[in-house]
Amino acid sequence: MSNLATDDAVAAFALAPGFRCAATACGLKKSGSLDLALVWADAPCSAAGVFTTNRVQAAPVLVDRASLAATGGRVRGVLANAGCANAVTGERGLADARRMQAIGAGATGAAPDEMLVLSTGVIGVFLDMDKLAAGVEVLKGPDAKRAPGDAARAICTTDTRPKIASVRAALPDGAVTIAGFAKGAGMIHPNMATMLSIVTTDAVIEPARLQRALAHAVARSFNRISVDGDMSTNDTVLVLASGASGVAVDDAGEAAFADALAGACASLARQIARDGEGATRLVELRVTGGASERQAHRVGDAIACSPLVKTAIHGNDPNWGRILAAAGYSGEAIEPERVRLWFGDGDAVQLLDRGLPVAFGAAAASGLLRSDPAIVHLDLGLGEASAIVWTCDFSADYVRINADYTT
Amino acid sequence: MSNLATDDAVAAFALAPGFRCAATACGLKKSGSLDLALVWADAPCSAAGVFTTNRVQAAPVLVDRASLAATGGRVRGVLANAGCANAVTGERGLADARRMQAIGAGATGAAPDEMLVLSTGVIGVFLDMDKLAAGVEVLKGPDAKRAPGDAARAICTTDTRPKIASVRAALPDGAVTIAGFAKGAGMIHPNMATMLSIVTTDAVIEPARLQRALAHAVARSFNRISVDGDMSTNDTVLVLASGASGVAVDDAGEAAFADALAGACASLARQIARDGEGATRLVELRVTGGASERQAHRVGDAIACSPLVKTAIHGNDPNWGRILAAAGYSGEAIEPERVRLWFGDGDAVQLLDRGLPVAFGAAAASGLLRSDPAIVHLDLGLGEASAIVWTCDFSADYVRINADYTT
Repeated sequence: MSNLATDDAVAAFALAPGFRCAATACGLKKSGSLDLALVWADAPCSAAGVFTTNRVQAAPVLVDRASLAATGGRVRGVLANAGCANAVTGERGLADARRMQAIGAGATGAAPDEMLVLSTGVIGVFLDMDKLAAGVEVLKGPDAKRAPGDAARAICTTDTRPKIASVRAALPDGAVTIAGFAKGAGMIHPNMATMLSIVTTDAVIEPARLQRALAHAVARSFNRISVDGDMSTNDTVLVLASGASGVAVDDAGEAAFADALAGACASLARQIARDGEGATRLVELRVTGGASERQAHRVGDAIACSPLVKTAIHGNDPNWGRILAAAGYSGEAIEPERVRLWFGDGDAVQLLDRGLPVAFGAAAASGLLRSDPAIVHLDLGLGEASAIVWTCDFSADYVRINADYTT
Repeated sequence: MSNLATDDAVAAFALAPGFRCAATACGLKKSGSLDLALVWADAPCSAAGVFTTNRVQAAPVLVDRASLAATGGRVRGVLANAGCANAVTGERGLADARRMQAIGAGATGAAPDEMLVLSTGVIGVFLDMDKLAAGVEVLKGPDAKRAPGDAARAICTTDTRPKIASVRAALPDGAVTIAGFAKGAGMIHPNMATMLSIVTTDAVIEPARLQRALAHAVARSFNRISVDGDMSTNDTVLVLASGASGVAVDDAGEAAFADALAGACASLARQIARDGEGATRLVELRVTGGASERQAHRVGDAIACSPLVKTAIHGNDPNWGRILAAAGYSGEAIEPERVRLWFGDGDAVQLLDRGLPVAFGAAAASGLLRSDPAIVHLDLGLGEASAIVWTCDFSADYVRINADYTT
C-alpha cells in the first residue's frame, strides 16, 4: 500500500509539454549510477524558486537566487547533480557553481544566468568539474538517457525510489499539466527539507504569479514533512512554466493553479516522507481543532519530530502518551483536558477523550499503526483550524544508514 | 572511560547528613526490581523544586508545586516510585498523588503537604495504590533496603546504571555536603528532561535562597543535556536542606553554594546523557565565540538534537557537514565564514577554519569521536560567550529499546 512510484509509473512519467531532459552517469557518485540531469525548454520559461532557510547555504542556492533576480524569473533550464553538494566550499565553490551554469547553458544555447543549478550529496567537497563537463557533453549526444524517469533517478542519493508526480489543473480558459520530480530521504525537515525538486508546467504564467503559487504550494507540502528534524544547506524547489499549453493563469485561475501545484508538491512530499531513511511506512498526522493553522502545524511538527513517537509507531506500539507529551512541549498552549486522539482513517480507534485514556483494543490499535500510511488524528478542542503533517516511522536501519555515510 | 558510577561507588554513596532513606520492590515494575524509595529528615527541611515546562503535567508535579507553595518550602521528605508515571490520569490521578503524599507522610510523622512525591514510568495508567501502600509499610520495617544507592536504583526505568553525585562546598563559615541521585535515559531534553532528581544538603539555607541556587544550577546542568529532544510530563528536580552542618548559606556564601550545587547537578546530568537509551558514549559539545550565552546554548542544542550528527558520531564518522548544517538551522544568526570546528580535548584535530574545510587525518578524527566523552568544539567567531551541552551518540539500540516499551 506504499505511495511510492512503481517501476511502470517511473517509466511512463512525462514532463509538462515544452520541456526536454537528459541524464547520465558522470562519475560523481561512487556507485557509478546516474548522477547528472538536465531539464530544459527551447525558449525562456517563467521560473520560481523556494530555498533553504539554513544560515549555511550551498553555492548553487546562492547562485540560483542571484540568477532568478538577474533574469526577473525568466530561465531556460536546470542542471542538477548528485554525489556532491557543493556546500561549505567557499569562493571556489561559488566559482564552480557559476561554471556549472555556463556549461549547462552552453549545452542548450542559453545565457549562463538562464541555467539554474542544483547539487546534492556530501558537504565540504569540491565539485569535480572535469567529470561534470564531460557528463554534460554526454547529455548533448546520443548516449544520454532521455526518459524523464531517468532524470528523476539521477538526482537521488539515499532515496530507495525516485519521486514523481503529475496532475492536470482545470482553469477557466482550459487545462494545464503540472509534472515534477524530487529527491530527499535524510536531513528532511519543515521549512525546507534536504530536498531538491524540479516541477514543470505548460501553463502561461508570469514569474511573480508563479512565485506566489509556489509559496502557497510549498507551505502545504514540502514544509509539512519531517524525516529527522534536520534541515539541509541545499534544499531547493524550482518550478518552470513553458507556456506550451497556451492556457494563461490569470487572476481568475490563480487559486486553482496554486491548489493543483500544491497537490503535485504534496504528492512528492509524501513520497519523500515515505522513503525516509530506514522507513517502513508513511505516517500522516492530522491535527484538528486548532486555534490557528500555525498552532495545528506546530503541534503536528513536534509530534513528527519526536524519535519516541516514531520508534513507537515502528514497533506498532500504541504508546499514545508519547504523542500527548510531544504536543505538550510543542510550544503551543494546548489544554490537555480538551485533547482527543484517534488512530486510523475515519477515527477507527479512540485512545484519548478530553484528556483521559479510553479503553481500547490493543490489537486493533497496533494493527492501525502497522498500516501504510499510519494515520494519527489529534483534536486539540480549541478551534476550527487544522493541518496535516507527514513523517515516517523510525527504524534501526536509519541509524545504520547514517552512521556510515561519508566513509 | 565512562563517567557512569561503578558498583563500588554506588555502594559507598551517602546522602548529606540529616537524611535517611529506604527502598523496596512493591511490584509497580513488572521486572520485580526496586521501585519505591523514601528519603526523609527527622525535622522540617528547606526545599526547592524545578519542574517540567510541558503543558501536560503529571499529577505528582501538580501536587508538589501546590505543596511547596502551601508549606513555604518547608518539607520533610520525598516518596518516589518507578513503573507508573501517574500522568494523564485526570482527577483520579490527582487524588492518587494526594493519597501517596498522605501514605508517605504517615510513615515519617509528617503532615501530608510535607511529603513531596515523584512518579516515573508508563503514562496514562493509574497508580496501583494497594501495592504502593503495602510498599510503604515495608519501608517502615526491617525488610527495607537502607543504602542510598538502593534508593537511587529504585527510581530507575530504562537506565542501565543509577546516577549519583556528591560534592563538598567550601563556604565562608565552613563546608557543607551536597549529595544527590537522579534517573533518566529516554525523553530527555533541555528545559527539563524525563528526569527525576533528589538532591540533599546539610547546609542551613532559607527556601527562597535554595530555590535561586537550584534555578542557577539547573540552567547549567539538566537544561544542558539532550538525549532525544523529547521532554517528559514528569520531570522534577528537588533539593532538600537539613541544616545538619550548622553552616549557614548567607549572601557571602550563596554564589559558592550555587556553583557547588551546579557541579553536583552537572555530574548527574552528564551521567544521564551518557546513559541515554542505546548510547555508547557521552558527547560534550563546547560552543564558544557566541554573541551571548543563549546563542551558544541554542547552537549547541540544535547540534545535540540532530539525529544525523548523533548517528555520525556513533559511526565514528567525521561528517562535520552535519554539525555545521545543524548550527545553521539553530535559529541563531551564525556567520558560516567565521566558524571554526575541532574534535578532541585541547582542540586536537581541526576540521573547519573560518567556514572552510581543513585537510585532516580521517583516522585521527574518527578515533577522537570514538572517545568517551567525544568532544566537539565549535567556535562561532561572534563574541566571547560560551556554553557546554551534553548528549550521547545514537545507536540502533535506541530504536530497539523504544519500539517496544509499553508492550
